[in-house]
Amino acid sequence: MSEISDLQAQIIELKNELQKYKSSGGRDKIEKMSSEVVDSNPYSRLMALQRMGIVQEYERIRTKSVAVVGVGGVGSVTADMLTRCGIGKLILFDYDKVELANMNRLFFTPDQAGLSKVEAAAKTLNFINPDVQILTNNYNITTMESFSKFLDAINTGGIDGNGPVDLVLSCVDNFEARMTINTACNELNINWFESGVSENAVSGHIQLLKPGETACFACAPPLVVAENIDEKTLKREGVCAASLPTTMGIVAGMLVQNTLKFLLNFGEVSNYLGYNALIDFFPKMTLRPNTQCNDRYCLERQTEFNSKPKVLQEVTVVEDDTPLHDDNLYGIELVSCDDTSSSSSSAAPQALETGLKFAFDAAPQTKEHTPDDANVDVSLDELMAQMKSI
Amino acid sequence: MSEISDLQAQIIELKNELQKYKSSGGRDKIEKMSSEVVDSNPYSRLMALQRMGIVQEYERIRTKSVAVVGVGGVGSVTADMLTRCGIGKLILFDYDKVELANMNRLFFTPDQAGLSKVEAAAKTLNFINPDVQILTNNYNITTMESFSKFLDAINTGGIDGNGPVDLVLSCVDNFEARMTINTACNELNINWFESGVSENAVSGHIQLLKPGETACFACAPPLVVAENIDEKTLKREGVCAASLPTTMGIVAGMLVQNTLKFLLNFGEVSNYLGYNALIDFFPKMTLRPNTQCNDRYCLERQTEFNSKPKVLQEVTVVEDDTPLHDDNLYGIELVSCDDTSSSSSSAAPQALETGLKFAFDAAPQTKEHTPDDANVDVSLDELMAQMKSI
Repeated sequence: MSEISDLQAQIIELKNELQKYKSSGGRDKIEKMSSEVVDSNPYSRLMALQRMGIVQEYERIRTKSVAVVGVGGVGSVTADMLTRCGIGKLILFDYDKVELANMNRLFFTPDQAGLSKVEAAAKTLNFINPDVQILTNNYNITTMESFSKFLDAINTGGIDGNGPVDLVLSCVDNFEARMTINTACNELNINWFESGVSENAVSGHIQLLKPGETACFACAPPLVVAENIDEKTLKREGVCAASLPTTMGIVAGMLVQNTLKFLLNFGEVSNYLGYNALIDFFPKMTLRPNTQCNDRYCLERQTEFNSKPKVLQEVTVVEDDTPLHDDNLYGIELVSCDDTSSSSSSAAPQALETGLKFAFDAAPQTKEHTPDDANVDVSLDELMAQMKSI
Repeated sequence: MSEISDLQAQIIELKNELQKYKSSGGRDKIEKMSSEVVDSNPYSRLMALQRMGIVQEYERIRTKSVAVVGVGGVGSVTADMLTRCGIGKLILFDYDKVELANMNRLFFTPDQAGLSKVEAAAKTLNFINPDVQILTNNYNITTMESFSKFLDAINTGGIDGNGPVDLVLSCVDNFEARMTINTACNELNINWFESGVSENAVSGHIQLLKPGETACFACAPPLVVAENIDEKTLKREGVCAASLPTTMGIVAGMLVQNTLKFLLNFGEVSNYLGYNALIDFFPKMTLRPNTQCNDRYCLERQTEFNSKPKVLQEVTVVEDDTPLHDDNLYGIELVSCDDTSSSSSSAAPQALETGLKFAFDAAPQTKEHTPDDANVDVSLDELMAQMKSI
């Protein structure tokens, strides 16, 4: 009998210990965001934004739905930030698995190695904030079959499941996936942000693509940050891409900060913001659409945008009312040029701001006559001339 | 008998389940950083930095020790990034507990509510990267008794436990703690970075303080980012501080990126880098020491620095050799002025760069005659004039 009670005591002890692990965490759902200043309120510091006059009605974040495509170094931190900000709905897309080789970036932990990125992320995010609705899509959006699923997912991904998502955030690492998102967003007329980090890990950027209003991803070669590194010291061949949690974290921060400004209508949303980590330089500019773009939906959107009365064009930038902080009390001169509204009538690409360059020098594919020297480096002037002739 | 074997079977089952939770995760320590490109190597993407010519001998990070003072919104992400980068040793300081009200920032999770910040952080960081030596200090550095413990901790916190830490990172949220770090670092001649985020969550900065070479924290009122918000819309009174994971993450990213550049000698380390989230503006400048500084150790360090031959002064910036990327192929003009070497002979504070301002307008405490209107707003010119007369 004493053996039995010993064993029973052991069982109780083990169950208690197990319970500690199982219940470690989580919090209950919160019905309504409160601005009460108590240690137990996960939203007090966010609601303070509205009491300080930075954001009007912060709770509107709960009515917003965002798709995050690519849950890697930038996408996972992006999803983490949006979750902690209390976004209404997050739709994650990735088809990769977590690896130990990802541990030099934020978010994933070694125990998640081998798990699908979207599932591992959703579990962590749901644990951090159970108020956020999280949907996962574990497939490659660039395949023919998946593309229609992707189209459908973002077109019905709104907060209520009927309309489209409010924004798509591209956090992918390749050209093909970016073009896929571009095609989908042009067709569905959905605004999206592109983001990217260089292979040597020391630069990155974000870019806002509003169909018809700013350049789409097919309008010109991708715009990237020009690193002022002597080309002689660069050794890219046969080397896997480098990455740093710092650069990824900063790019995710820039992406989500501009997402918040866009969704909640405060401050100025940057159309393009670059980051050169070696010299802490952050170039900005606005890319206008190419009237000769290959993407027919881009051309349709341009026509639609240009047919709107000028005053309406401006209103499309905001949601409910004018931005909160559009004055510039300190007369700070920006590197950016923000005159998109009158620009889409010209086929000539605009001059690049200092510190930016096109990712590649080749003329767009549809150029009918490819010169023999198409692969030879050409000057920006020559490139511009080529592009004008598309 | 069957009851006993039932109970024993139950015990085995419970033990197995418990083991699953206990062992969920972690990875074994790694003796030497490898650049092998395999999914199981957590350092492959970091070692690629050296193969790409960005960093020379990335493994040197393992010989570096950094103190992080304050493990809140900025400090926790800072520690996370450094841990994932494989820093040799991290010494954490904080005396606060995790609360649900911290969940709107990255890193901590709801299950950690109530735990000490340093202990919760150390556990997570150790789980993420067991190769990093992590020490915790759970006390308030500003008390008389703790100050000597703090001095001792950073003065013997080097990688081998004999010399001082390589760098102190201030991630605290109040003036007193910053002044405490300043006092300690001036006395011990330790380089440190200050960081800060505004109470309305939409601006932040980092600042490098090299005793004798750049301004110390007592040389002038703290320099902060001027937000171009109409003061009429600001409502600060009776409101708890707002915070955003985006702003905190970007400031932590700027802090750790410059820490990596400083420790591993690549790129250009920024002496001051600000961030205005509302307009994505990143002002830079260099603050020179005040020859009339109140801190006597600051004055000693200035004398030491000025007595060094000019060529030596330049060498103190680097560790082993010249920085890897000090050329500027694109002729990018920076907002910064980087002429610290010849400046510490003048008592007059330099003009502020656009987008920056002093945190408060009052003249430093030791000013012998406090005018009756000391609390009234004064113009920058008047402030400058006052400061010249210290």
